Amino acid sequence: MFFELQHTLRGSSARAGRITTAHGTIETPIFMPVGTAATVKGIFHRDLAEDARAQIILANTYHLYLRPGTKVLEEAGGVHRFSSWTRPMLTDSGGFQVFSLADCRKITEEGCRFASHIDGSKHLFTPENVIDTQRSIGADIMMAFDECPPGTAERPYAERSLALTHRWLERCFEQYAKTEPKYGYRQSLFPIVQGVTYPDLRAKSAEFVKQFDPDGYAIGGLAVGEPAEDMYAMIEVVNAILPQDRPRYLMGVGTPANILEAIERGVDMFDCVMPTRNGRNGMIFTTEGVINIRNEKWRADFSPLDPGLNADGSPLSFVDATYTKAYLRHLTISGEMLAAQIASLHNIAFYMWLVREARRHILADTFAQWKPQILEKITRRL
Amino acid sequence: MFFELQHTLRGSSARAGRITTAHGTIETPIFMPVGTAATVKGIFHRDLAEDARAQIILANTYHLYLRPGTKVLEEAGGVHRFSSWTRPMLTDSGGFQVFSLADCRKITEEGCRFASHIDGSKHLFTPENVIDTQRSIGADIMMAFDECPPGTAERPYAERSLALTHRWLERCFEQYAKTEPKYGYRQSLFPIVQGVTYPDLRAKSAEFVKQFDPDGYAIGGLAVGEPAEDMYAMIEVVNAILPQDRPRYLMGVGTPANILEAIERGVDMFDCVMPTRNGRNGMIFTTEGVINIRNEKWRADFSPLDPGLNADGSPLSFVDATYTKAYLRHLTISGEMLAAQIASLHNIAFYMWLVREARRHILADTFAQWKPQILEKITRRL
Repeated sequence: MFFELQHTLRGSSARAGRITTAHGTIETPIFMPVGTAATVKGIFHRDLAEDARAQIILANTYHLYLRPGTKVLEEAGGVHRFSSWTRPMLTDSGGFQVFSLADCRKITEEGCRFASHIDGSKHLFTPENVIDTQRSIGADIMMAFDECPPGTAERPYAERSLALTHRWLERCFEQYAKTEPKYGYRQSLFPIVQGVTYPDLRAKSAEFVKQFDPDGYAIGGLAVGEPAEDMYAMIEVVNAILPQDRPRYLMGVGTPANILEAIERGVDMFDCVMPTRNGRNGMIFTTEGVINIRNEKWRADFSPLDPGLNADGSPLSFVDATYTKAYLRHLTISGEMLAAQIASLHNIAFYMWLVREARRHILADTFAQWKPQILEKITRRL
Repeated sequence: MFFELQHTLRGSSARAGRITTAHGTIETPIFMPVGTAATVKGIFHRDLAEDARAQIILANTYHLYLRPGTKVLEEAGGVHRFSSWTRPMLTDSGGFQVFSLADCRKITEEGCRFASHIDGSKHLFTPENVIDTQRSIGADIMMAFDECPPGTAERPYAERSLALTHRWLERCFEQYAKTEPKYGYRQSLFPIVQGVTYPDLRAKSAEFVKQFDPDGYAIGGLAVGEPAEDMYAMIEVVNAILPQDRPRYLMGVGTPANILEAIERGVDMFDCVMPTRNGRNGMIFTTEGVINIRNEKWRADFSPLDPGLNADGSPLSFVDATYTKAYLRHLTISGEMLAAQIASLHNIAFYMWLVREARRHILADTFAQWKPQILEKITRRL
């Protein structure tokens, strides 16, 4: 993996860059749709790539380890071949999921013992075997195994947790160095900066992770209950320490506003379930504001779902040019699965449009003027 | 609407034809995917038309009357504009649904009083207002309002029901003659031949409906519990009476075998929920046989979903060339909605391939040799 920093916005930390992987290039800042089980819910890979213009998707180690399992993934020749997604892919380490989804949580120095949320079967994740599992999955970017404390964690817990995450990180990189990719292409390993909302812990963590000289860095443990201002403050602390010449990935973030604020503070990569999950519930992000499509006001509104256009004059997604608000409301009210498909594809296309526009305005040095204007527009409730 | 009978198979009743409507032409024999609420469940209209090659879809008067309602449909300018499906469309009259779905069934000479399955609200369907509703919907082909008795109905009930259906049919055609299309294009009205499995009642019904000289004829009340052989016998009775120069539509049928047998007996049009409903449950119709994709045997089968090809060398659907059996199994087992999307699109494409192949072999006079061979192949359990 190679990161080229193309431009840093004048008087700002916002950056535009390009990541090159064995499965293609990624233009940053970038949003990565979440494809937990190697599928972005409700969207064909073809439409994700060609229509929504996704460049990289995220899958989840915890879910893929349980289903279909590493044996099937190895027989398939890795997750790209298994799922038919041919572009870059990143796997989350499963740390967050074993703490949130798996019901029997027991953290020790060794790792974390958990019970599968599917059948209750017992499993152990360690820094070592999570690297092994990610080798079997075969994503272009792998994530370190960490503990993710809540955003409200008290200082003593935050300190203990960070120390454990750092010891685990050393073991992750040891295992990473000891193992080879299984499918003939490089897999990068990103460490994760933790430290809750304590600036000195965040700074300490950012300094600590630099020793591994990784291909990129992640900032974890944010957008987990703390005020947005605290999140932005932590990003500033961390990004002042992380090297300029590597991409920074803010995990699990977020709203369109969160993303633009983080871009302004020097973040390059994002992922979030919001566009798909909220889309399935009838929340549509548009270039003119936010829509609750179940609302009576859309009953006979035959205007396009989103009249917004890309810089090249094309609609954000083919569904925007095809389907009306009234029809999507009808499908949603009727419980038709096509509603979730349209909403998911549109919302992903919207997020991709947002980061593409951000990149365009960074490259043109117009980001500072554009950001407040677009935020005012897209955060309106329609 | 205009029907051109292009070819009748030598020594058989199987026919190839072409129906011309205001929204385009339909090559028969044809399968019509079921789009109950103006959406074929889980499939974008674009993929339905361009990938699965659907030429006409069916929507349901009962469902559209309840949601979104005729007012919205009229404001939209009809169901084509409302749903963005631009090709031909047919609406079922809602007769079958008020008897099967709506819980308060009360049939009188006037019509049928029923309670909505959505909110329990009370409604009345009459032959007249069902025509009015179908005028508001605006499909190219409308269906008469009939009573559909079970396939096991005793003779006295069958006789009474048929007499009522015939009186209702006269009222349907009276209302049809008295009303104009609302959107400027012709809407045809098909009468429905009933008569359970009594050959003389079926013959009587076929003779009765001819008086209206309609653009096409439907055969209803079959595939509702009677043996397949009885269904085939009834088709033969009816098609010997119906005029050659009009299309015949066998309602709600059926399996691939049912369809080929009915084509051989002179049926031109079909609809059935089987490809989409069974697809959502993991049943995949392929050119090599029937697959239960949940089966363990597909766990690590990385062959394409269906290796079959169209006569022009293309895959049946893009999903066949893209996704493997193992990946679809993974999605199905994991409860991912993409599973239903892939299975639905593939199964519809399979049904469209089947009738396209049937047509090709009718035109080439090779249908009689082809039918047993293909049936042996596609009805196998893999």
